[in-house]
Amino acid sequence: MSVNRSAPALIEVPRGLAGVVVTDTEVGDVRGREGFYHYRQYSAVDLARSRTFEDVWHLLVYGDLPDARRSASFAAETAALRHLPDGVQAVLPAIAAAGAGANPLAGMRTALSLLGAAQGFRPVYDIGADQRREDAVAAAAAVPTLLTALHRLGKGLAPVGPREDLSYAANYLYMLTGVEPGPERVRAIEQYLISTIDHGFNASTFTARVIASTGADVAACLVGAVGALSGPLHGGAPSRALDTLDAIGTPDRIDAWIRERVLAGERIMGFGHAVYRTEDPRSRMLREIAQSFGGPRVDFAVEVERHVEAILAELKPGRELHTNVEFYAGVVMELCGLPREMFSPTFAAARVVGWSANLLEQARDSKIIRPVARYVGPVAPVVVPSAA
Amino acid sequence: MSVNRSAPALIEVPRGLAGVVVTDTEVGDVRGREGFYHYRQYSAVDLARSRTFEDVWHLLVYGDLPDARRSASFAAETAALRHLPDGVQAVLPAIAAAGAGANPLAGMRTALSLLGAAQGFRPVYDIGADQRREDAVAAAAAVPTLLTALHRLGKGLAPVGPREDLSYAANYLYMLTGVEPGPERVRAIEQYLISTIDHGFNASTFTARVIASTGADVAACLVGAVGALSGPLHGGAPSRALDTLDAIGTPDRIDAWIRERVLAGERIMGFGHAVYRTEDPRSRMLREIAQSFGGPRVDFAVEVERHVEAILAELKPGRELHTNVEFYAGVVMELCGLPREMFSPTFAAARVVGWSANLLEQARDSKIIRPVARYVGPVAPVVVPSAA
Repeated sequence: MSVNRSAPALIEVPRGLAGVVVTDTEVGDVRGREGFYHYRQYSAVDLARSRTFEDVWHLLVYGDLPDARRSASFAAETAALRHLPDGVQAVLPAIAAAGAGANPLAGMRTALSLLGAAQGFRPVYDIGADQRREDAVAAAAAVPTLLTALHRLGKGLAPVGPREDLSYAANYLYMLTGVEPGPERVRAIEQYLISTIDHGFNASTFTARVIASTGADVAACLVGAVGALSGPLHGGAPSRALDTLDAIGTPDRIDAWIRERVLAGERIMGFGHAVYRTEDPRSRMLREIAQSFGGPRVDFAVEVERHVEAILAELKPGRELHTNVEFYAGVVMELCGLPREMFSPTFAAARVVGWSANLLEQARDSKIIRPVARYVGPVAPVVVPSAA
Repeated sequence: MSVNRSAPALIEVPRGLAGVVVTDTEVGDVRGREGFYHYRQYSAVDLARSRTFEDVWHLLVYGDLPDARRSASFAAETAALRHLPDGVQAVLPAIAAAGAGANPLAGMRTALSLLGAAQGFRPVYDIGADQRREDAVAAAAAVPTLLTALHRLGKGLAPVGPREDLSYAANYLYMLTGVEPGPERVRAIEQYLISTIDHGFNASTFTARVIASTGADVAACLVGAVGALSGPLHGGAPSRALDTLDAIGTPDRIDAWIRERVLAGERIMGFGHAVYRTEDPRSRMLREIAQSFGGPRVDFAVEVERHVEAILAELKPGRELHTNVEFYAGVVMELCGLPREMFSPTFAAARVVGWSANLLEQARDSKIIRPVARYVGPVAPVVVPSAA
């Protein structure tokens, strides 16, 4: 509402704000040429290999890796926050019945919005940094409970309540299936979740920051981000890559199936990335995890990868097309017993931590994010015709 | 997911993307130096003075003002869409109980999200322009029903169902109070609603477009926009201007009250605008509407306006500080019997049409809106310390 005296000069930039620096960040970055990405100052893959989800969550929202004592206390704090307020728990069957079963991200969007209201989240503009972080941690801690309850209700099953004695990853699998998962699956899904927390700037992260820049509450920011994530152009649909494996079916069909589609100009789901010109570092880690499970499905995936990369190198020379995160993420989630419709929600359950770190960083800046549009319609004013 | 071969050049722009052209638009524009704003090619104030809300809604989402026959059919179509699906209706008491009563925009956010799931809205990327528009019209048509039901439930009152024989504006006041409103109030609130549908580019409109650019469904876009609107920095809190009137109390206190605050560097709510260097055209129209009601409250508001403008001209010469839309919007809504906590939701009930027009326009463009962030944290990678 400050008064701007001079006529604003319009600034021309590439479509979609490509390459436009909207903010400085200390959350992390992607170095596409190096095949490297990091959270704060640490390699994200190294974090996935050596730390717990809760430790990396702490790193993202507090800015540092916890020591042993803090690690235990943060894990206990967040475990206690897994329980839903009664007013939210009671509404989940109705949210599931209203169609969230068919569209899990719409269910997550609705349930998170409700949770924010029930928790009395106040505008980030009106509260201090500690309270903002508390709200963000409370929201993220409740996401697995919301997601798994909606999934089970959509299947006609009773929700399984959270267990505080399990890790974030173990409790997620437990609430989904009602069975305590084995350590191999827990560690596999934990590494997937850690590797997916953040990945440079993307449309959902940007959405969370735009909403945070208005000073709105944490739930408003996260709900907008979930909405953006649900867009087909956002990317991140690990189930599509598995659909490719299913469509090919058997090793002998790989060559013909892929050539036909590449020559028809179709995209092969699970291959190619906007930023990486090398192998996707997430893909490499997830392939190793999949191979540690072994089995014919994994062997087939590896064979598909090898064939597709060879065919793409032949048909699109110099393009450096490799598997992206979707390809082996789908394989790993399938190995861990996740149903395909939970792949995107599981991605969201990790990314909510990245959104949290980004919205908290944005909330420290009092400048609203508000570009302009250029009117290109018919010259105004035209006299309004009177209603007939 | 297309592969970008060259290293992206970072483009520096002003903070908050100020002045950065993010899109072309045919929805409308604001000309701050002229004190003029328009929807499509028509003056918004002229539209408010001469047409119905439904006609202007049609203009925004279809691109043209309807003729008499189409005007009647669109009014009938949208009236029929006021009824909520059973699955949504049944959940509203729980949404109200979960805290939406204290935070009406959080309630609107939750209920709209649920409505989108219940209606089975599909990603705009996956559907044609006609279906997108149908979804957007269905969502906006249901907003007054959602808002008034949540408000009444929060007060312990039963919701009042919609009446198809009333206009959008009349039905809104009817559902809020349970009493059929008189024509003067209906026309006053209708003109307020029309004048508030759109106003150039702002953070909530931008949010709706960012989410639409991912190809997400209409509800995802609108829910994000509601979240942005709820931010204190977005502006648009007409109740605050009334709070100023209440705080001053009587005409003899105006001068001292205002001088004290201006000299202390405080903002006077209801005065000043980021774009207009003239009187706000909405303010002029709303003052005339208020004066057509008359009464001591209106006389006091006019006197406050006159005094404040004189004091601001004296203390801040050359700044051209006038009342903004908030000032008389609050007065008009109060005259129409709206409780103060419904001022922002009423604003949202109009703006949802502007968001609709913008998201539909964005959905025709297949380019995702995704700027970049510049990493400025400690140099990565630092070796990850092992968990203690």
